[in-house]
Amino acid sequence: MGSLLPTLIWRRICRLDDLLHGELNSFLDIPMADYYDNQTLLLTIYVKQKLTESIQEEQQLASMTLAERDSLTKRETSITSSSPMRLRMEAFIKAQQSQIVAALEAIDDGAVFRRDSWTRPDHGGGGISCVLQDGTVFEKAGVNISVVYGTLPRPAIQKMRVNHPALNAEVDKLDFFAAGLSMVLHPHNPHAPTVHLNYRYFETANEDGSPATAWFGGGTDLTPAYLYEDDARHFHATIKDACDRHDQNYYPRFKKWCDDYFHVTHRGERRGVGGIFFDDLDESEKDPENLFAFVQDCLKAFLPSYVPILEKRKDMPYTQHEKIWQQIRRGRYVEFNLVHDRGTSFGLMTPGARIESILVSLPLTARWEYMHEPERGSREEKLLRVLREPVDWA
Amino acid sequence: MGSLLPTLIWRRICRLDDLLHGELNSFLDIPMADYYDNQTLLLTIYVKQKLTESIQEEQQLASMTLAERDSLTKRETSITSSSPMRLRMEAFIKAQQSQIVAALEAIDDGAVFRRDSWTRPDHGGGGISCVLQDGTVFEKAGVNISVVYGTLPRPAIQKMRVNHPALNAEVDKLDFFAAGLSMVLHPHNPHAPTVHLNYRYFETANEDGSPATAWFGGGTDLTPAYLYEDDARHFHATIKDACDRHDQNYYPRFKKWCDDYFHVTHRGERRGVGGIFFDDLDESEKDPENLFAFVQDCLKAFLPSYVPILEKRKDMPYTQHEKIWQQIRRGRYVEFNLVHDRGTSFGLMTPGARIESILVSLPLTARWEYMHEPERGSREEKLLRVLREPVDWA
Repeated sequence: MGSLLPTLIWRRICRLDDLLHGELNSFLDIPMADYYDNQTLLLTIYVKQKLTESIQEEQQLASMTLAERDSLTKRETSITSSSPMRLRMEAFIKAQQSQIVAALEAIDDGAVFRRDSWTRPDHGGGGISCVLQDGTVFEKAGVNISVVYGTLPRPAIQKMRVNHPALNAEVDKLDFFAAGLSMVLHPHNPHAPTVHLNYRYFETANEDGSPATAWFGGGTDLTPAYLYEDDARHFHATIKDACDRHDQNYYPRFKKWCDDYFHVTHRGERRGVGGIFFDDLDESEKDPENLFAFVQDCLKAFLPSYVPILEKRKDMPYTQHEKIWQQIRRGRYVEFNLVHDRGTSFGLMTPGARIESILVSLPLTARWEYMHEPERGSREEKLLRVLREPVDWA
Repeated sequence: MGSLLPTLIWRRICRLDDLLHGELNSFLDIPMADYYDNQTLLLTIYVKQKLTESIQEEQQLASMTLAERDSLTKRETSITSSSPMRLRMEAFIKAQQSQIVAALEAIDDGAVFRRDSWTRPDHGGGGISCVLQDGTVFEKAGVNISVVYGTLPRPAIQKMRVNHPALNAEVDKLDFFAAGLSMVLHPHNPHAPTVHLNYRYFETANEDGSPATAWFGGGTDLTPAYLYEDDARHFHATIKDACDRHDQNYYPRFKKWCDDYFHVTHRGERRGVGGIFFDDLDESEKDPENLFAFVQDCLKAFLPSYVPILEKRKDMPYTQHEKIWQQIRRGRYVEFNLVHDRGTSFGLMTPGARIESILVSLPLTARWEYMHEPERGSREEKLLRVLREPVDWA
């Protein structure tokens, strides 16, 4: 062995990840006679101790959940472009949440969002819910992030395989990770539209914690009570720009997907003037780096897509009649979220889910009038026409 | 044959239902020589004509749907205790609807319910919706009946066989009939409770129109925003009386079923202080006559179960704080109806269903406050305790 030994030791210290137990054991069994000086001997003793510790740590790691391992990584290292996508997505949505909340507080005359951090009892992960209720501009505004570690039972895996054939059908359970930012803003003024946004990253893990399959989903859509075509065009154009930077097909595909998804089928109406929606974007679509970059651009496009509209509308005068129409449209919003939205029903059925964060998407007030029919030729009827027959805005 | 012939003919005229085509044909083939006088001959000619008409009618009947046959019966005969259960249930709920609407109009200072008759386009049946919106006492009151003829496709039959093993699993489709009265009353005053009631009769038909399997379902439950124990006790005692007249086990069984059914699981709360709920009561429970009598008594118990409570509460003074709490409870009502209620989701997914009649159960106004928590020791908290842990009221 001779003088190569210290180098070998140091290399092993630096690359503990590659260390195999068998190799270590044969190394620890090297007879004392083979150490050629005291310095090396002392170093070896030190290293033996370090290696023993790292074996213990590795054994500990193997028995840790994905959540515990990620939490260790976050404590001990900073997030870089070579960190796992889970941690990069988490860091990104956290930063965006702060930025968006700050921008909305400024718009709402300096009102302060309530900030609640929560963890899932008996499960991994948690989130931060930022909510402003009955502000000057916003009736209700929720900007939430959640970072959830959980386990999918076999029936849920079978279900998920429909969209994700790459999932291993042989296992009885599958660790998963989901991180997302979701937001719904309901302004007081009936001329200022409601907006929704949600971007999320989903990952399933092999037993050793390495990602098995992963995908991005999300979108954003605008729900006015009164149609301003300029607003719809601005909203769509801003999103289209973000999409076009990544793929010319994204916007037309995801715009149609949005019209199809936000469909209050029992009313024969779309929820609003649309936007984009996509799900299950995985490596069969593009590599994860490209997808992450796309989702980042979409989320960064939010403030420019919505704030100029809100600034124009938030202080417009309005009548009692207009307020009531807004309340009726809010009722339809509730119908979509509680009856049709997959995210909401998934959330409501998930044990340990934070119900208040899920249902923060519901408006503060809503109204259901029996057989309400807008007058012919009215602005209310004009909106309904667009909801029944989606328009190309970009 | 001789002198017995006229008797035979008359018996056959009187029992056309039993007539088989083969028998008639052999009868029509009797040679003229066998008629022993002119009187009998003339009678025979008359009867031949009548029998031919009735064969045609029978053939016509065979090609008619259940809805067309029932409609014919209703036009041509009056409903008696020997009429099909379908028609008796329909007649009963129609009469009850008129009576209940009249009673509620009297309570609401003579306000008049809007009455809408509707038919299912391209399907059999229809209904009558009676709705009072923004009255003096009622914020919204809907008293609806529907009488629906339809066809269950094979997957729906398979699903239904879980509760009704008697259903024929071999057929590709099954005609069904459903008749029910359903009602939700939301008073303005936060001290006056919301009440719901629904009783229904369901029947599947063999290809010849005879009933294949039939059952009753329904119930009634009370949803106060502020708990008055006297009200809950009165409501339950009145229902228990109606139940006890038929079976001492009904009330305890159906009271528990109600607590289990009206469970807003994602909130860990019952919708209100309960009442009774049952479904799938068929001949394995009791014979149809007994079940019908039970359902009739339950429905007749409605006005005495609720009106005295309403009279006591409708004019109580209330604060803005109490009104807001009522609005929050209304929000929970919406959550139950849109997320959990099987009747509502079945209705919303049924093609040709009348959405406005299904969703008339939703209150005129509702509210969702983020993280609303009643003060400790408050009346609001007292209600929540009862919703979390159902109480025996009778």
